[in-house]
This record gives sequence, structure tokens and C-alpha cells, in this order.
Amino acid sequence: MSVVVMKFGGTSVADIEHIRNVAHHVKREVEGGNRVAVVVSAMVGVTNQLVSWVREASVLHDAREYDAVVATGEQVSAGLLAIMLQSMGLQARSWQGWQIPILTSAGHGAARIRSIDGGGLRQRLEDGEVAVITGFQGIEPERQRIATLGRGGSDTSAVAMAIALKADVCDIYTDVDGVYTSDPRIVHKAHRLPKVSYEEMLEMASLGSKVLQTRSVELAMVNRMRVRVLSSFVAPDAMAPVHMDRLEDIGTIVCDEDEIVENQVVSGIAYAKDEAKVTLIKVEDKPGVAARIFGPLAEANINVDMIVQNVTADGKHTDMTFTVQVAELPRTLEALKAAKSDIGNFGVKSSADVAKVSVIGIGMRSHAGAAAMMFRALADKGINILAITTSEIKISVLIDTAYAELAVRTLHSIYGLDAD
Amino acid sequence: MSVVVMKFGGTSVADIEHIRNVAHHVKREVEGGNRVAVVVSAMVGVTNQLVSWVREASVLHDAREYDAVVATGEQVSAGLLAIMLQSMGLQARSWQGWQIPILTSAGHGAARIRSIDGGGLRQRLEDGEVAVITGFQGIEPERQRIATLGRGGSDTSAVAMAIALKADVCDIYTDVDGVYTSDPRIVHKAHRLPKVSYEEMLEMASLGSKVLQTRSVELAMVNRMRVRVLSSFVAPDAMAPVHMDRLEDIGTIVCDEDEIVENQVVSGIAYAKDEAKVTLIKVEDKPGVAARIFGPLAEANINVDMIVQNVTADGKHTDMTFTVQVAELPRTLEALKAAKSDIGNFGVKSSADVAKVSVIGIGMRSHAGAAAMMFRALADKGINILAITTSEIKISVLIDTAYAELAVRTLHSIYGLDAD
Repeated sequence: MSVVVMKFGGTSVADIEHIRNVAHHVKREVEGGNRVAVVVSAMVGVTNQLVSWVREASVLHDAREYDAVVATGEQVSAGLLAIMLQSMGLQARSWQGWQIPILTSAGHGAARIRSIDGGGLRQRLEDGEVAVITGFQGIEPERQRIATLGRGGSDTSAVAMAIALKADVCDIYTDVDGVYTSDPRIVHKAHRLPKVSYEEMLEMASLGSKVLQTRSVELAMVNRMRVRVLSSFVAPDAMAPVHMDRLEDIGTIVCDEDEIVENQVVSGIAYAKDEAKVTLIKVEDKPGVAARIFGPLAEANINVDMIVQNVTADGKHTDMTFTVQVAELPRTLEALKAAKSDIGNFGVKSSADVAKVSVIGIGMRSHAGAAAMMFRALADKGINILAITTSEIKISVLIDTAYAELAVRTLHSIYGLDAD
Repeated sequence: MSVVVMKFGGTSVADIEHIRNVAHHVKREVEGGNRVAVVVSAMVGVTNQLVSWVREASVLHDAREYDAVVATGEQVSAGLLAIMLQSMGLQARSWQGWQIPILTSAGHGAARIRSIDGGGLRQRLEDGEVAVITGFQGIEPERQRIATLGRGGSDTSAVAMAIALKADVCDIYTDVDGVYTSDPRIVHKAHRLPKVSYEEMLEMASLGSKVLQTRSVELAMVNRMRVRVLSSFVAPDAMAPVHMDRLEDIGTIVCDEDEIVENQVVSGIAYAKDEAKVTLIKVEDKPGVAARIFGPLAEANINVDMIVQNVTADGKHTDMTFTVQVAELPRTLEALKAAKSDIGNFGVKSSADVAKVSVIGIGMRSHAGAAAMMFRALADKGINILAITTSEIKISVLIDTAYAELAVRTLHSIYGLDAD
């Protein structure tokens, strides 16, 4: 007998038929002897409708009222799933944030979970009742207002509930059947990873993988909660109930690196095409110039990713290259123009035809030469590197978009990730 | 300065434009110096969608989960109205049942309000904040589950909030501009009643008037809360803010009879066409026969309205005539058939071609002759009376449907209700 938290996102509960499918997944676990808490998102169309009503009511809306309106989406899907489970003969009830309670910070629309008292709920699970919990929300205790965690926050709700309930595993059901070594649409030899470490998953999430929300992975890592990614679109009776000895049979387990026995040096190749490159030419090279360039961008809430600085031949000027999200490019250029009097004279070039390709692997910590191998492989294919950033377990390079697929496939192959 | 509770139903908040109109009504009151709490129903289409989802999920659904799902409708409209009011520069916040709290009985789907602590909210009103309150719901305190009051329960929510807030008046905005002496579609000379007593309003509600929900009128009567019926479709700036000396200028005030100076003997003529007549012919007339007939109907939850009993010429048998709702006629006939062994032999005739016409007036208590006047007027027009029931302030007769309009217009005229 295990205690299992199951999380289903908006596409998995899109309508009554999908909710019925979810109920069958839950039933399988209960009949297999497991204790189950389910965390649900809103039906996918419902949240969009609620958000559009709020925007129609007022562009500048109170975040607390926005939360009160939007949080109803999960209350609906939780109630409907509880009804469906009952109709299948299971004991079940829905739980809203204020009923448990799930206490959050006051940062409405992007609140953080502060505490959950899972004791009473755990007892009900032991008694055989399925708890159906509204994801994405809690209450801010001081004013007793509903606070939402921001889009995708249901992953975080699920992990936090799993921790509070001292669950054995937190199963996140999505529309993919696990975490892959690379995007299977680009790399046909990509394969599912049975396990991936929290750290790698975090890098993948921040590099554009939408499988898990970054905060949920952080929370799981800090509390060493095992999270598994699996597909809700597999037929419920084609899967076995959770058994802790056979977790690896399906999906991808996100866990502590110690649990991963055979560590590959590199476990995945990621890429992102939504980057834009900006180069400031011949900026006067004096102390504080970087602060004068990037300060105004930070104030405008523009996230700068890679930064490369070269000194020009005369030694008095510098060329500064950095990347931002493509969508932020117009605002970036405006912010730079506005800051011209502070920065001094400079020319600007920008391009959206760039892609970031990244190699991720916890094994890189202890294996020298992974970076050199990457640079050599790209050079062999005639691919020019425009910028480089590294972390302990990741190397990212910026290249021309035209070469993105070639680069990803080449790297997938040379790091030994191609499936047989 | 008055404390005003304003209630808006589902058609008054049907979409964002309607909610904007409601916000202008509220703004007029605030700018006129009044303190305002608003009680809202769900947007009319939203409740229907929620109910249909619940039914699709399971025909036999848990009433508590039904309530959790359906209650979100008011949470959405309350949040949207608060946002709209804020965008107009007013201080406002939404309140859900658990936040106030509004405590109810455990009768999910048809719960009754038990208590509301209005002290904190009243203080916020005094400070100039508008409270936007979800109608139709509260929480059942023992299990902390959301409980709804049943369809139309928002009227009751509004009156209960008005009592808890010690409001000066509870204004119920509807799609009609007040209570009329009769249905203006039938009686062109019908006119708006500036005032009507609680007792009369109760009779009108139970005789088919859908202006106010019966329970809300009972609650208002017991607590002597002044309720006013007025239209939300009047342009907000075409009305003056509430002033207690000028309440009668618009709509209809439902109040204590002592407040109605010039009491008409009769204040309204109602009619209902959804009655069906059932006659049991030649039932053996022995003690307990009525119980043996109406017991099974009560068990089948069929509401019997008028009952007339005649003894036949032989003195050993009786003809028993009664009315039920047309929709209940098939079930009624089935229940009688099933009870035949208890009742003994009888023949059955039934007809849906009957209408009930009622004369209502608190003045009938002290004026003899009102009934005789009615019977004579109907006889003069050749209208045959099939059954009669009376209460202290009401006389109802059952007649052929074909004569319903004629009867209503005739009575409207002879009791002096025709407008000049």
C-alpha cells in the first residue's frame, strides 16, 4: 500500500469524457490498494473564459478579485471528478483551498504555498476516501482571500500536497509519456529517460521544456519528493497500479541523483528558438557600463539570458552582445534608446534568427571535456558559435537558427543518446 | 445616509455589459451617500452550464459536490462586479459564503440560512467599502461544506444579509418594475402597487407570481425588513439614490400592513393555468377515506391544492375533486391506481383545461362580502365555478381555462383596480 498523489492538468480534464478517463485512472489505484489524493487543474476552456471575462470587465483588475474568479475553474473540475468517482462506487470528496487549508503568501496571481496541514486529510485517505483537491490555489491567511499560484501552479500544488501527506510518489499526468533525451519531433532517435535528477529537470524546465513547472521541481528537490511524469492518455487499464518497486516501468521519475545508478554524462539536448540577439557596437569601455546597459532592462522587467563582452582593437570601446526573448525585442530596443544618455554613444544590431542549443547532464560535474566535445562536434559541421554560457551541469550555445536541428541531432548522437 | 442591500438576479448580470449596468446602479447609490452591500446571482448561462456538467457526470450526484460546483457561478459574478466597481473608482471587494461566514443548515441544494454575523461587514460599509456578496449560498458549519439555498435562493440571501447588516431597505432588482394588480399582459388596466403587505406578497408568490421567492418574503416578514421590487433595466441615471422618505417613487415596497395607509380591500388578481383537476367518482363514503386517497399522494411527493367533497344522492358514496400541478397529473393517476385496493372502487375523471383565479387582499379580513361579490360577478358572466378555496386574505376559484382571461379582467374591474 502506497500513498499516491495524482495530478491531472487542464487538457486531461477538458470535458466530462476526459474527467471520466481520469476517474478510471484513480479507480485503478484505489482498487490496487493505494491511498489516493488527486490534484486537478481547471477544464482547459474554463480558465480561458474566466480570464477573458476579467479582462473584459477591466484591463487593470485587482489581483485578489482576479484570483477569486479564476480559482472557480478548479472548484468545478474537483467537484465533477468527485461526483464521477462516487458514481463508480468510490468514496470521494472535493477539497477547496480554504477547507484544507492550503495557506499561501499574499502575492496574488503568483502566490507561494507557505504551509499545508495534511494530517486530517491523511487520516481520511487511510480510511479509504479519495481526496480531490483544487490545484493552483490556496488562501492568504491574514485576509482570508483566495490566492492563485499562477499558470501551471497545479504542479506545485500537487508536489506540496504530496509532501504534506507524506506521500510515496507524486504522479504528474500530462499529455506526454515522460521526459525525453530531446524533442522527438526533431530527433527521431530520442528516447524516454526512466529517471532524471531534480537538477537536470530544473535545467530542462528553464531551457524551455514545458513538462514540469520549475517551482514544482524546486519544491520536490528540497523535500526529496519523488515526482513521476506520465501520460493521462494511456488507457487506464493498460497501466498497473503504483508499486514502489516498479515505478520505472512507465513515465519518467524525477528524483535525487543518488537514486540514478547508471549516470550518463549527458542526459538531454534542449533547444529554444524564441531567443533574439542584440549587439551594442562600440560602447565606451568605462567602469559601470554593464550596469548602465542592463539596469534599465531589469527595470523594464526584461529578462536577459546570455551575455558576451569583447573589447575592440583600440582598447577603449567594447562590443556587448546579449539575448532576450524574441517577444521582448521591441521593448528591449526602446529601453536601450531611452537609456542612451546614460550609456553614451553606441550602434545597435539585432537578430531573431538565433537558437540556443543546450547539453544537460549531471555527469558533467565530474567529467571534464564535455564542453570541448560539443565545440568540436559543432565545428566539424561548420556551425558557428555566437555565444556560450555554462553552469555546473549545462552548456548552452547560441547559433544561427538554420543550424538548430542539425546541431541538436549531432549532439544527441555524439553524447551516446541515440536509441538503438 | 442609508444602508442599502441591492440584489441582482441572473438576467441582470447575464454578461459583462449587464454587469457594467449593475455597477452604475451601485455607483449611483454610493455617490448619493448610501452604504451599499450587493448580493448577486450567477450569470444566467453559467449556472445552466454547471448544472448540465454535473448531470452529465452522474445522474445520481452527491448534493454536497453539486453545491461545490454550482456555487462557483456566484463567485464569478461577485468577483467580476467587484472588479467593475473598482474600475469606476469605488472601493469594493467580493465575499464568498465562507468568508463572512453565512452559516446554513446541512440540507444541501435546499439549505436554510441559520446565522450571519454582519458586524464586521457593517463596519466596512461604514468605511465606504461596497461589499459584493455571493447569493444563493453559505457554508454548513459542521463539515465546512458549501451549501446552496436552491434556485431563486439569492432573494433569501439578500433579505438575510439586509437583516444581518441592519439595513434600511433591501432592494431586489428584477426584470419587472414592480408588483402589479394583475398580469399586465392580460389586464391592460393593471397598475403598479406602490406598497403591498408581506402577507399579500406571500399569497401572490404561492399563487404563481415569480417576482419574489416565497422564503425571502417569509424571512422579511418575520424580521420586518422592508423589501422593494424594482427593475434593473431602468437606466441607472434615470433613478434617484435611495432616500427613505421617497422609497415609494419607484418599484413596489413589500412591508408591514401598518405602513400601508390606504388599504384597498383587494390588492391583486392572480391566475394560474398550470392546474389539473382530478375527480374520483362514487368513492365509498366511510371514515378515513380522505386519508386513504391523499396519503399515497403525499408519499409520492405530489402537492394537492384545492379539495372539494360532495356526498352523492344515495348518501353512501362521495365524489372527491382536487387539483394538482399539470406536470404531476400522470404520476397522480398512477399513485391512485396503485392505492385502489386501499381506497375501494371508484371511477376517475381528469382534466387539464382548468385555471385557478384568485383575489388577494389584506382588507378582506375586515370586509365581509368580498367573496359574494366575486361569485356574483362570475355568475353574471356565465362562468361556472368548479371549486373554491379561501384563506383569511384570499379567495381562489377553479374555472374552465377558456374563461380565465375574462374572469381576471372582470374581477380586476369590479374590485376597483383598473387604472384611470
